[in-house]
Formats: sequence, structure tokens, C-alpha cells
Amino acid sequence: MGGLLNATFGNAPELILALLALQDDKIEVLKWSLLSSILSNLLLVLGSSLLCGGLFNMGKERAFDRKQADVSLSLMFLGLLCHVMILTYKYNTSYGESMSVSGTELVFSRLCGILMVVAYAGCLFFQLKTHRQLFLAQDEVVSETWGIPVRFICVILLPITGNATEHASAIIFAFKNKIDITLGVTLGSASQISMFVMPLTLIVAWVKGVNMGLDFSLLETASLVMAIFITAFTLQDQKWHYMKGFVLILCYIIIGAGFFMM
Amino acid sequence: MGGLLNATFGNAPELILALLALQDDKIEVLKWSLLSSILSNLLLVLGSSLLCGGLFNMGKERAFDRKQADVSLSLMFLGLLCHVMILTYKYNTSYGESMSVSGTELVFSRLCGILMVVAYAGCLFFQLKTHRQLFLAQDEVVSETWGIPVRFICVILLPITGNATEHASAIIFAFKNKIDITLGVTLGSASQISMFVMPLTLIVAWVKGVNMGLDFSLLETASLVMAIFITAFTLQDQKWHYMKGFVLILCYIIIGAGFFMM
Amino acid sequence: MGGLLNATFGNAPELILALLALQDDKIEVLKWSLLSSILSNLLLVLGSSLLCGGLFNMGKERAFDRKQADVSLSLMFLGLLCHVMILTYKYNTSYGESMSVSGTELVFSRLCGILMVVAYAGCLFFQLKTHRQLFLAQDEVVSETWGIPVRFICVILLPITGNATEHASAIIFAFKNKIDITLGVTLGSASQISMFVMPLTLIVAWVKGVNMGLDFSLLETASLVMAIFITAFTLQDQKWHYMKGFVLILCYIIIGAGFFMM
Repeated sequence: MGGLLNATFGNAPELILALLALQDDKIEVLKWSLLSSILSNLLLVLGSSLLCGGLFNMGKERAFDRKQADVSLSLMFLGLLCHVMILTYKYNTSYGESMSVSGTELVFSRLCGILMVVAYAGCLFFQLKTHRQLFLAQDEVVSETWGIPVRFICVILLPITGNATEHASAIIFAFKNKIDITLGVTLGSASQISMFVMPLTLIVAWVKGVNMGLDFSLLETASLVMAIFITAFTLQDQKWHYMKGFVLILCYIIIGAGFFMM
Repeated sequence: MGGLLNATFGNAPELILALLALQDDKIEVLKWSLLSSILSNLLLVLGSSLLCGGLFNMGKERAFDRKQADVSLSLMFLGLLCHVMILTYKYNTSYGESMSVSGTELVFSRLCGILMVVAYAGCLFFQLKTHRQLFLAQDEVVSETWGIPVRFICVILLPITGNATEHASAIIFAFKNKIDITLGVTLGSASQISMFVMPLTLIVAWVKGVNMGLDFSLLETASLVMAIFITAFTLQDQKWHYMKGFVLILCYIIIGAGFFMM
Repeated sequence: MGGLLNATFGNAPELILALLALQDDKIEVLKWSLLSSILSNLLLVLGSSLLCGGLFNMGKERAFDRKQADVSLSLMFLGLLCHVMILTYKYNTSYGESMSVSGTELVFSRLCGILMVVAYAGCLFFQLKTHRQLFLAQDEVVSETWGIPVRFICVILLPITGNATEHASAIIFAFKNKIDITLGVTLGSASQISMFVMPLTLIVAWVKGVNMGLDFSLLETASLVMAIFITAFTLQDQKWHYMKGFVLILCYIIIGAGFFMM
């Protein structure tokens, strides 16, 4: 049950903020903040963890298990597909940066939102029911070496203190050479925002009659595409070292500078 | 010889239909049907196989050999490169969804078509001459466990009964935990349509004086790009489980909905 | 020290030519030649090496170590991110193939240029300081089997005779079944041009008051994207055979034909 609660409420602050933002129809700001949350988890937090942990444990980096990272990344690829489909539709019909969402886009976004929540639920089910032993084993290893149960950190500490603690814990686990947990926290969080917080917000907006779509601008979609592909490339072998973190952080700086200046 | 015949005539129905469609100058419909055939092989058939086979063989999934899948996927990347080059050229010169093919596009498409057939022939040669033992070994294993020779299925049964049987056999092999054959059937079929049926149709159209190019719309190209990258990502480690199939099927639904609605 | 010198001066001819071209404000030609150098290293030279070496050593291909290839490819992904960000910005603001560089693009390009040089320096440091034993071991193995020290080839021969020798040596090492060195030469050269020669030229241009940006046209960026992704896909497992080289060469021909005709 710990995993389920964490998986669902780990990003509770984001979810609550997103639902509050809906009240005031601040749709653009909302989507922006969710996107920046995904990008910072994928590039900044994961990058810092790999850089710091890699420098600290140099030469002793333990291989990580790709299974969990792969599930998170496939979910994000699925979300990416939705954004890309909507963007290309937009460019097929009207050229220009029109901010308003057309009817078709809205219907398609809502359908995508429902499928994304279904995919996320399926993934949760997969992790909890059929691969339970994998995660339990992980928990025990951590508890032994850390003194306090990791479940406490995940279920109680993280949701209360929000992202700062989550990010800190990702880096701390990298220092402890527990890169599997770092990946679980960062990729898990990114995929959760992408595949649960965002579509759920969209569905709530729909119920409230607010027109929210999954459309991003070309620059935003391109950043997301590159961030997900670069992360997937970085994690494709089971080894890690600090250079991987260094490159991810530089990617984050470039995307950040791009958004700031353009 | 079995492999060659299968590889060449496995998609005979598609090829015949494609050549008949040329008669009536139904170029758009033709390209559409070839694209949908590639997408359904990559996402729907492979996805269903992984989902059903993964649920049935849960925890006992055997690792697959990536070599054959990699050859098919590189061929498809090569085909993708042609489509992307033509699309970007189109966007460089004229903005707008003009359906007519310009002269340069046509010449470039024909050149690409020839190179695609050359690449496909080279790949066949590679599989038949130098990696023969690999495939023969596979055949024997299958024959033993299945009772009837797999060569019979591949050479006789599939071409006669068309895609339905092919798809069914992909799923049946996944149930039997023979995921290598499932991958061979689905990816082989997709790469064959992409790298043999499509360019051959184009060359026949050229001989007949029909102006057929390799150009797809932005939405179609983007779907193909995402489908190939997601499949390549899914198959990059040698393990499989039902979640991978689940995600592929959802991708297919999203692309299908996108085409239907947009 | 050998590695550092080679890494910095291996592409000295390109760097000198690039700096001379700046004198005459031939910015477009310059960027073009750097791009073609990257593409030919990634696709043509690597492809020929894999094809020839794979045919010669058929069935005896030794697995290669992915670590070095991965570092080069991540650097190139970082460079790609810069080009993609600038291209999408261009398309966000003005539609059309305007050749002039706007002020924002210029500032962003210069920032990217500085970050690229930082990334390249970090990568050099990584390879020299912390993974020294890896490269030393490689050197020794080569010296033993080749008769003349590889360091001599890398530091003296290559910079003097320029790219022709570099390309020849990549192919010769593939014949000798030393695919690790082939990958080091080709990917190292491509990433060096992308992440050191290009940004350094940009910074020198900046000092001279010449407006050089990192912007490429849609067709050029798409070629670079496809070339890097296809190379990364080709090298993702640690095995190689001549078909991989064959496909890479065909990709090069298609891109070359595309540039020539379009």
C-alpha cells in the first residue's frame, strides 16, 4: 500500500496547486509549471544526483536495474505522443502561434487525458501486483542501510515537505550509491506529473467547463522531446558516472536559457 | 529458400492490392493503407502479442535475441529518414498542406525508392547467407514444440490467408513464449512494407508514369517517427513483460484516434 | 597528454580552415562544411569501417566497449539540443527561410557556444583524469598488435595528414577488429567538431564582431537529428556486423542526395 499512496500522493502539492489554478482559469501558467516540473525532475534533479553521487562514489558506482526506469520512460513516451499529435495537428491546420484551443484539439486532448490515466493506473497495478517482490526487496535493503524506513520517507516526509525534500532525497540516495531509488524518485515523479497530474487536471477542468488542452507550443514540445530522448539515451545501459549528470544539467541550463530568452 | 520466399511474399496481398490501386491512381489511399499497415504491425500486433503473451507467461518470459529486431528497425530508420527528408524539404519551400508533389520531390522519392529496395535486398542477403545458422536453429526449435514445421506456416499459410493469420500467429507465438518469432513476424512485416512494398509500388508507378512520391503529411510522418522510436525504445533491452504491450496498444489507440478526428 | 593533444588538435585542419573562413565572412559555407564533416564522420566513415571490417572479420567481430561511444554521443545530443532550440524559436516567431540571424538567436547561440566548450572540457577532463586506465589499457593492446604505438598515429600522423588519414585509420582499425578505436576516432572527431570547433569558431567570430549563430535550416537540422539518432540506435548493443555499416552508408547517400537536389 505504501507504494500506491506514494505513487498517487507523492506529487500531491502539484496536484492541489494545479486544481487551485483551475479556479482562476490560469491554464497557461498551470501547464507551464507542470512542464517545468517534468523537465527539472528529468534533467536537473536526476543530473545533480548523478553528478554528485558519481563524484562521491567514483569507480564504485553500482549498476542499476533498468526495469523501473523503463516503465516510467515508456509512460512518458506515451504522454509525449499525445503532445506531438496535437502539435502537428495544429501546424497542419493553422500556421501561427494561436493560443486558443480548437474544438477538435479539445476533444482529442480529453480522450488522451483519459487514456493517460488508464495507462498510469495499469502501470501502478503492474508495479504493485506482479512485481511486488522487486520493490519489497528494495525497501528492505534501504531500511537496513539507512536506519529509518524508506516507506516513511516516501509516504510521510515527501508529500508534506514537497519537492525540495524529494529532490534532496534523490541526491542523498545517489550519495549512498542507491541509484535505483534516485531513478525511482526522479523518473517516477516526472512520469506521475506527465501521466497523472496533468490529465487529471484536464479532466477536472472538463467537468468544470474550463477549456484546457494538452497543447504546448513548438518550443515547449521540442524541449520535452529532447529531454525525454536524452534521458532515455543516458539510462540505456545500466551504468552511470558523473559525466552523465554533468551533461543532463547542461541540457537543463540550455532549455532554461532558451525559455527565458525566447 | 523458405526465408526468402516468406520475406518476399509474406506481404504479397499488400503488394498486389498496392499495384491494383495504382491502376486507378488512388495514390493517397494506397499510401495511407501502407502506413496504417506499418503502424498496426509495430504497435497493435506487437503490442497485443506482448500483452497476451506476457500475461500468460508471467514471470517466465524468455529473453529474446535482439539481432533480428535490430536489423528490421535499422531498415525502418532508413525509410524514416527518406520520409523526414522529403517532409522537411516540403516545409522549407512551401508552407501549406499542398497535396501535389513537386518535380524535385518526385526525383528524390524515386532515388530513395531504389536505395530502399537495395537496402532491403542487402538485408535479405545478410540474413540468408551469413546468419543462416541463426535462423535454421530457430526453425528447428519451433518445429519441435509446435508439431508442424514453422516453414509451412510462414511460406504457405501466411501469404494465403493474409494478415489476419499473420497477426494471429504473432500472438500465438507470444503465448508459446517464442517471442523471437513474434518479433520476426511483426517487425519483419513492418520493415518489408516500409522498405519493399512501398518503394516497389513507387517504382512500378514510375514505370507507368504515375506521379507517386514518398511524401506524407506532417501528422502521418510524426506518427511514424513516434511509432518507430517507441518500438525501438521498448525493445532495447532483451526483456519483455505485458506492460510493454499495454503501452504499445495505447499508443496505437492514440494515433488511431488522432487520424480519425483530425 | 597524448589524448589531450589528440582531442584538441585532431581536428586542427578544420579549426584553422574555419577561422580563416571567418575572415571573409563566409559564415554559411563554414557552417555547411562543419555540418558535412560531422555527418560524414558519423555515417560515411563509421559506416565504411563497419562494412569493411564486418565483411573481413565476419563471425569474429569482437564486442566493443560502449562507454567512450556513449560519452561522445551524449555530447552530440547536447549540441543537437542547442540547434533544435534555435530552430524551433525561429519557427515560433517568423515563418519562412530568413537567412539573417536575429539578436535573441545570436545571444542564445553564444551562450550555447560557451556551454558547449565547457561540456567538451568537462568530458576531456573525465576521460583523462578519472578513466585514464581505460585508455592506457587500450593503447597498450594496440601497440602490441600493431607494431607502432597508437599514440604516434593519433598525435603526429593524424593532425599532419588531416582527415584522409583519420578516415583511413578508422577503416584500418576496423579491419584489425579494433572497433573500439574506430569508434573513438569517428565519434570522437564528430563530437569534437560539434562541441569544440563549431562553438570556438562562434566565439572567435563574436570577438571579431561577426554575427555567427548556431542556426541551421530545417533540412540541415533534421539530417543531424536523424544521423545522431540512427548512430545511437546502431551502437546501442555492443555488437556489430557489416549490415550496420551498410545501413549507415545508405543513410549518408540519402542525406547527400537530399542536400544536392533540394
